[in-house]
Amino acid sequence: MTGSTWKELGDLKRRSILEAIPAKWRFQHPVAPAEELRDVTGSYIQQFLTPREIEITETDAVGITERTTSGNWTAVEVTEAVCHRAALAHQLVNCLHEVFFDAAIEDARRLDAYFADHKKPIGPLHGLPVSLKDQFHVKGVETTMGYVGWIGTFQGKKVDLKRATFESELVRELRNLGAVLYCKTSVPASLMTGETVNNIISYTWNPKNRLLSSGGSSGGEGALIALRGSPGGFGTDIGGSVRAPSAFNGLFGIRPSVGRMPYEGAANSIDGQNLILSVIGPLATTARSLTLLFKAVLSQQPWYRDPLVLELPWRADIEERTRGLIKQSLNGSSSLAFAIMHHDGIVQPHPPIARAIELVKQTLTQLSHKVIEWKPPSHQLAIDIATRVFNADGGADIAYHLGLSKEPKAPQVIVSGELLQMNAQEIAALNVEKRQYQKLYMDYWNTTAEITGTGRPVDGVICPCAPHAAVMPYQYAHTGYTTFVNLLDYTSVVFPVTHADKNVDVPQPRAEFLSEVDKVIHEQYDPEAYDGAPAGLQLVGRRLEEEKMLTLAEYLGGEVKLMTCHELKQS
Amino acid sequence: MTGSTWKELGDLKRRSILEAIPAKWRFQHPVAPAEELRDVTGSYIQQFLTPREIEITETDAVGITERTTSGNWTAVEVTEAVCHRAALAHQLVNCLHEVFFDAAIEDARRLDAYFADHKKPIGPLHGLPVSLKDQFHVKGVETTMGYVGWIGTFQGKKVDLKRATFESELVRELRNLGAVLYCKTSVPASLMTGETVNNIISYTWNPKNRLLSSGGSSGGEGALIALRGSPGGFGTDIGGSVRAPSAFNGLFGIRPSVGRMPYEGAANSIDGQNLILSVIGPLATTARSLTLLFKAVLSQQPWYRDPLVLELPWRADIEERTRGLIKQSLNGSSSLAFAIMHHDGIVQPHPPIARAIELVKQTLTQLSHKVIEWKPPSHQLAIDIATRVFNADGGADIAYHLGLSKEPKAPQVIVSGELLQMNAQEIAALNVEKRQYQKLYMDYWNTTAEITGTGRPVDGVICPCAPHAAVMPYQYAHTGYTTFVNLLDYTSVVFPVTHADKNVDVPQPRAEFLSEVDKVIHEQYDPEAYDGAPAGLQLVGRRLEEEKMLTLAEYLGGEVKLMTCHELKQS
Repeated sequence: MTGSTWKELGDLKRRSILEAIPAKWRFQHPVAPAEELRDVTGSYIQQFLTPREIEITETDAVGITERTTSGNWTAVEVTEAVCHRAALAHQLVNCLHEVFFDAAIEDARRLDAYFADHKKPIGPLHGLPVSLKDQFHVKGVETTMGYVGWIGTFQGKKVDLKRATFESELVRELRNLGAVLYCKTSVPASLMTGETVNNIISYTWNPKNRLLSSGGSSGGEGALIALRGSPGGFGTDIGGSVRAPSAFNGLFGIRPSVGRMPYEGAANSIDGQNLILSVIGPLATTARSLTLLFKAVLSQQPWYRDPLVLELPWRADIEERTRGLIKQSLNGSSSLAFAIMHHDGIVQPHPPIARAIELVKQTLTQLSHKVIEWKPPSHQLAIDIATRVFNADGGADIAYHLGLSKEPKAPQVIVSGELLQMNAQEIAALNVEKRQYQKLYMDYWNTTAEITGTGRPVDGVICPCAPHAAVMPYQYAHTGYTTFVNLLDYTSVVFPVTHADKNVDVPQPRAEFLSEVDKVIHEQYDPEAYDGAPAGLQLVGRRLEEEKMLTLAEYLGGEVKLMTCHELKQS
Repeated sequence: MTGSTWKELGDLKRRSILEAIPAKWRFQHPVAPAEELRDVTGSYIQQFLTPREIEITETDAVGITERTTSGNWTAVEVTEAVCHRAALAHQLVNCLHEVFFDAAIEDARRLDAYFADHKKPIGPLHGLPVSLKDQFHVKGVETTMGYVGWIGTFQGKKVDLKRATFESELVRELRNLGAVLYCKTSVPASLMTGETVNNIISYTWNPKNRLLSSGGSSGGEGALIALRGSPGGFGTDIGGSVRAPSAFNGLFGIRPSVGRMPYEGAANSIDGQNLILSVIGPLATTARSLTLLFKAVLSQQPWYRDPLVLELPWRADIEERTRGLIKQSLNGSSSLAFAIMHHDGIVQPHPPIARAIELVKQTLTQLSHKVIEWKPPSHQLAIDIATRVFNADGGADIAYHLGLSKEPKAPQVIVSGELLQMNAQEIAALNVEKRQYQKLYMDYWNTTAEITGTGRPVDGVICPCAPHAAVMPYQYAHTGYTTFVNLLDYTSVVFPVTHADKNVDVPQPRAEFLSEVDKVIHEQYDPEAYDGAPAGLQLVGRRLEEEKMLTLAEYLGGEVKLMTCHELKQS
């Protein structure tokens, strides 16, 4: 391979991914181009599957484990169905980096044998196929993280005993829990962009509208799960990388606070940067599936295996208390209060997102919850701080890994190259700035206790995840809607609300703009191009409020779905 | 004041501290020099107090609050007694930076009025005088943190509205809890040394042996509490700064993990350094007093006020479970296991410390607890990493603050001056090294489950806090015994064990040494000079195990005391 160009190496790897798919599952004819075939979800992909395969793959993770842990479905049958659908998904939108279906089916066979022997499942995820973003090391397969220079190496190192043998801590725990691992999903090289683009798989398209992006950096997860090629998987989020793909693909996804999910032994970008930490979070088709995955991992006590994980088991008392608040609301006397942030003072969202917010607001109001306006400290300051954090090393880490193969950097990457590195004092000062911003925001949140009427500050903030529904390539110009959450280290759950609809979401002429980028993004809106793109929103909670936010997201997601179905019927 | 030298300004401030003490409490004659009068605790200081004052000041924090929250003692009487004793303490060992007894007595009066009106205390610390290391801002008084250049400023800034008006979050919470604030205690300028020395109060001596140090950097706290001029107070610890003063003064002290006590709004050294964080911890005369103070602060929900505090209320279930394990042990079937680290592979402790370890080992064995040898990963590596962390900014922050007055740096400060600053990539790499070390240590801890016989890894590790009892000036050559805990972010509680005894702790000739510093420290041992110096040890637990470690420390501290009293009777 020595002497090969990055292009040749990338092409070779791309072909090898395709070749890892069993011949029987490969398309014989090229798929129609996106211009002719935008939406490959639903009936389109179903045509290649048996009714049984459709039944299995369109069951959520909770539904699958209910059947696999009780012996109603075998792990092998579930795994084969999911592998088949994942194979189709990849051929439609380029969402996989690694395909190891044989190993998965072998694992599933062992799980079935265990169940037959012991009459009980090996763990709460027994027989559940789980997809993984290509940052997690799985024995027998590679981790490229989208870098051509990582092909045939361990994180860029040619000689390393860990290569193809080492497993990340999360992977070890998932195996303990009975999950079946079968693929790794695409990411942008560097991870630092909201689109999934690299010199291996090229671009991961949005299954609902293949003119659009599946989001990033966990874009492969988003696309794969949207096509039901996975019931749920794990991504990572340093600036929105779990949430953008969730919102852009009509999924639920959580960005937990630092210290809950075990990052130990996973590959990362700019590893060791210690001001805004990347965190692991699951993405899935239902909120209850997120809870299943999150809770299952905590049951492994990752705090004894990962020094950065906090000893915080799943707090059932908080879940119960939250369910109590919801129940009270159903009796008409709401004790829940939400804030709505229509825009962040920098960019007004496109019509589909503005409509999504109104939908949620209506839902909340109909449920007689208190709804207030969110008027937080400057989000521009949050962006300024986060941008300096991400660029603190002057792009040196990313430049190094791209340099291994001399491949070019995608223009979408938000980290500049060749900047000056910050020194220790500058980094310390930046960290103090960050803490002061966190304090400011925290104090603002506290003040809402005076107007909610519940005696508490707001229980969550509803806000856009991005100014647009699933984005057009090269047009993700404002990541501030997700990044402020990372800076604050808050919990945020994305939930699906609606889809862009060219007939409803007509462009609104505007004479005044919040900022230059506001004008740019306003002008980017094209109802025809965006038509059909999923539009999700964030439910943002405070730091380490995962139990509360997952419980609220399940409730809200359900209510919003009822509301939108109702509207659909009426129209 | 412009044009004054640092020496003049320091002298002025020193005199102003003394002058803030009411004339009636000032010594009329100079105190005898240390050579003639080593030990100023116990009967020496008692001669200046009434029997009632002695009774009050020799009651621990739990005992005081039992009486003040039930109306048996008034806040004013308690405060006056403690202020009087603190005034004496300062004149004996130079342990105060700020004296505000009048404000304290006024606060105490308000508390008494509240109690009279409401027939109940304002909070769990109602009427309890609490001392504070001079990093916490209290309205009406200065914070110098030992820097001459901070006199008359807010953290070195001449113009700042916060000056003399702002209060740190911990201070706000202590007031809510009903505590009475009356003094701030001495620290070394820079905080980065295990002795308390600065150009204001000069040197804080050890009350048990005034030839020795009270430790640092919370040395003023250590000395003041040792003299019972405070029932308990708050220090900070980035490398041993709570623990060394606790061990050197026969006290209990806890270094909690990052994220439990609110540092928000406190002054700090090298603020923003984000690899090893300084934490707040209480020091007190009894373990149960630590628990009282720790629990009281948590009851204020500091996680809604300090963005770095974790939402972790006092975990009564862990306390209960730990008490259960202790109870089980009392029935003869121990389910507790401890490890003993006799030395860290770098420096053998002096005879008093080695004897203290043996005493604890005997105690544990007699209580039929499992005791194993601690054979951890290299502690030299921990020291190397921590040293690089502390020096990452090349000493720039400390040089800047010393430079404000052009005062010289004490030779004991462990941060070098004028080094090159590390850049972002180097800091990130260092952070990865740190994480890998934490992982290595965690994995080692896990392995002990195989040999404890309890089915769990060891419940705690007993080890020295320093190679020596309370140290001789300029001879604190090895801080590794405390620093490894900060690097690992573990919980450590110091408990008193014994005192250096020239008749028992005779020097042991040695031919072989673990390291150069081992030889240096071995040769420093002088049984005559060290005679009477307190010798405490650490009980080290894992990260965020404060509830467990405080409960175990109370138990162990009590058992060790019984054991040593018994030995004393026999000898």
